Amino acid sequence: MNLTILGTSSALPTSERFPSAHVLNVHERLFLIDCGEGTQMQLRRHRIRFGKINHIFISHLHGDHVFGLYGLLSTFNLMGRTSPVHLHAPENYREMLLSHLSDFDIRLNFDIDFNPLSGKDPVKILDDKYVTVTSFPLEHRVPSFGFIFREKPGDRNMIKEAIGKYGIPTIRIPAIKKGSDFTTPEGRIIKNEEMTIPGPEPLSYAYCSDTKPFRRLPSFVKGADVLYHEATFSEELEDLALTTGHSTTAGAAATASKAGVKALLIGHFSARYKDVEPLVEEARKTFPATFPAIDGKTYDIASAGEW
Amino acid sequence: MNLTILGTSSALPTSERFPSAHVLNVHERLFLIDCGEGTQMQLRRHRIRFGKINHIFISHLHGDHVFGLYGLLSTFNLMGRTSPVHLHAPENYREMLLSHLSDFDIRLNFDIDFNPLSGKDPVKILDDKYVTVTSFPLEHRVPSFGFIFREKPGDRNMIKEAIGKYGIPTIRIPAIKKGSDFTTPEGRIIKNEEMTIPGPEPLSYAYCSDTKPFRRLPSFVKGADVLYHEATFSEELEDLALTTGHSTTAGAAATASKAGVKALLIGHFSARYKDVEPLVEEARKTFPATFPAIDGKTYDIASAGEW
Repeated sequence: MNLTILGTSSALPTSERFPSAHVLNVHERLFLIDCGEGTQMQLRRHRIRFGKINHIFISHLHGDHVFGLYGLLSTFNLMGRTSPVHLHAPENYREMLLSHLSDFDIRLNFDIDFNPLSGKDPVKILDDKYVTVTSFPLEHRVPSFGFIFREKPGDRNMIKEAIGKYGIPTIRIPAIKKGSDFTTPEGRIIKNEEMTIPGPEPLSYAYCSDTKPFRRLPSFVKGADVLYHEATFSEELEDLALTTGHSTTAGAAATASKAGVKALLIGHFSARYKDVEPLVEEARKTFPATFPAIDGKTYDIASAGEW
Repeated sequence: MNLTILGTSSALPTSERFPSAHVLNVHERLFLIDCGEGTQMQLRRHRIRFGKINHIFISHLHGDHVFGLYGLLSTFNLMGRTSPVHLHAPENYREMLLSHLSDFDIRLNFDIDFNPLSGKDPVKILDDKYVTVTSFPLEHRVPSFGFIFREKPGDRNMIKEAIGKYGIPTIRIPAIKKGSDFTTPEGRIIKNEEMTIPGPEPLSYAYCSDTKPFRRLPSFVKGADVLYHEATFSEELEDLALTTGHSTTAGAAATASKAGVKALLIGHFSARYKDVEPLVEEARKTFPATFPAIDGKTYDIASAGEW
C-alpha cells in the first residue's frame, strides 16, 4: 500500500503546490481521493496509469477538490475507456456533474456508477477482495466526508520446514495459507498453526480534508497506520480556522494523538506559508510522528513514519 | 506586445503540454485567451501577475479551453479582487458559468461583465486607448471564435534637432507627437512632418483555435504580425482533421500564406505527437516562417519570426 500526493495546496494553489488529490495504491489498484484542478497533468507527470483508476472519492463540493474531474473524465473518454468509473461523492453532485458534462458536449463512453455520500455516521462504501473503504462525516462549511481504507488480512505464510515434515502437496498450499488444517495420508490432522505463521499486518490509510476538529473524529480514524489530515493554518490562526471550517497544525496533531495513528501527514496548506517546515514543527509538539505532504512524493504506508 | 504560451495540448494533455491558454501583453495590460485546466498554475509558474488580467477571451465551449476558468475566478476572489472581469465568450456560456459557480458555493466579490460572442462576421469587441480586438467566427464542431488584437498607432517620434531649431517648449511636445503643427512666437507655422517621424508600426496578433480551414479565414487575419493557428494533426491525417473540425499543419500553413502574416505559430498538438518538430517541418513546406508554440515560452511580437 502506498500513497502518492498530487496536490497539497488549499483553495489557492502556489507555484509549488497543486490543489488536493491523492492516489492510494492497494495491490496495484489505484484509488483517487479528491480531484483538484490539474490532477490529470499531475498523474501524467508522475507516470501513474489512468487505466488503473476505477474508484474516485470526492470529499466535498469545493472547487479545489473537484475542478480536475471534468478534464479527467473527458481524458478517460478520449483514451477509449469503456469500463465504469465508481464515483463516491456528496449526494447532490450527480445532477451537477451530468449537467456540466452535457454543457460541454462530453458524451462518455463509459458508465459512472454514482455512490452518494450522506449521513452522520460512518458507512462502509466499498468491500472487495483486498480492501474496505468507510466514509465518515467531517465538519466543514459544506457537507464533507473523510475516508478510511483498510487492507484485508492477507494469507498466512507457510513455515517452509512444515511442507517437507508433513509431506504437504503443492496443490493444498493455497487452502492452508487461508487457514485450513491438513490431513496426512495416514489420517493425522495437522493444525494450521503448526504449518503457518500470520501474514503481514493489514495496513490502513485515513484521509480527512476539509474539516475542523470535532469530538468524534478520532474514533473514525482510530489506529490508522497513516492519517492525512488538513492543517490549513498555523496554530496562531485558530480563530480563522474555526470560522472557515478548517484545522490548524495543533488541531490535526491532537486528532492524530487521540486516534493513536502511527504517522500523521499534514497538507492543504494555506498559500501564505511558503515554507511548511514550521507547520510540521508545530504539529510535532503534540504529535511527534508528523510529516509534510509534498506534491509528487510517494509514501510507503507499511513504513509509516520512517520517511 | 508579447505573447506567453501557457498550454499547447489539444484535448488530451501530456506531461509536457497543458491545455490551451495564451497571455498577450499589450503595454503591460494582459489579455488571457482561452483558459484550459491548470491555467492558474501556469500563471504562477511563469510569474504572471493575476491582477493585470482584466479581459478573458474564450474561443469555444470545449473543456480544454475553459476548465481552468472556475479555479481562476475563484482565485481572483480569494486574492481580494474587486475590479470587474470582462469575459468574452460564446453567448450561451453566461448561464452555464453562473450556475456552476453557484453549485460550488463561489460568491464572487467582483462583477463579471459578460460580452457574448455570436454571428457570422467579424465584430469589434474591444476598443480602448492602446488596442482593438475583433472576434470572428471559426468552423468547429461547436460555435467557435478567433480573435485579432491590433495595437493602435502610437505617438510620432520627435526629431531632436527640430526642438532647438524652432525653439519648441517642452509643454507643446505631447501634442506635436500626436500630430499637431507648431506656431512659432513670430507666427510661422511649422508643419508636423518637419518635426516628427512616424512611430513604430502598430503590431497585431491573431488567435485561431479550434477550427478547420475555410475560405474566409485568411481575410479575417490578413497581415497579422503573428498568427497562432491550431495544427492538431499531421497532414497525413487530413480526413480525421476534417471530421473532427480541426486543421493539419498544411491547412494552418495555407491560411498563414494566404493571409500574408509575418510568422505562424502552430499549437494545439494531438497527444500522439511526442516531438512536434516534424509538424513544424511539414508546415514550413508551405509557409517557411512557421514556429512551434511551446509551453511557458514568451514570443516578442515585434520580432515576429526571429525566434
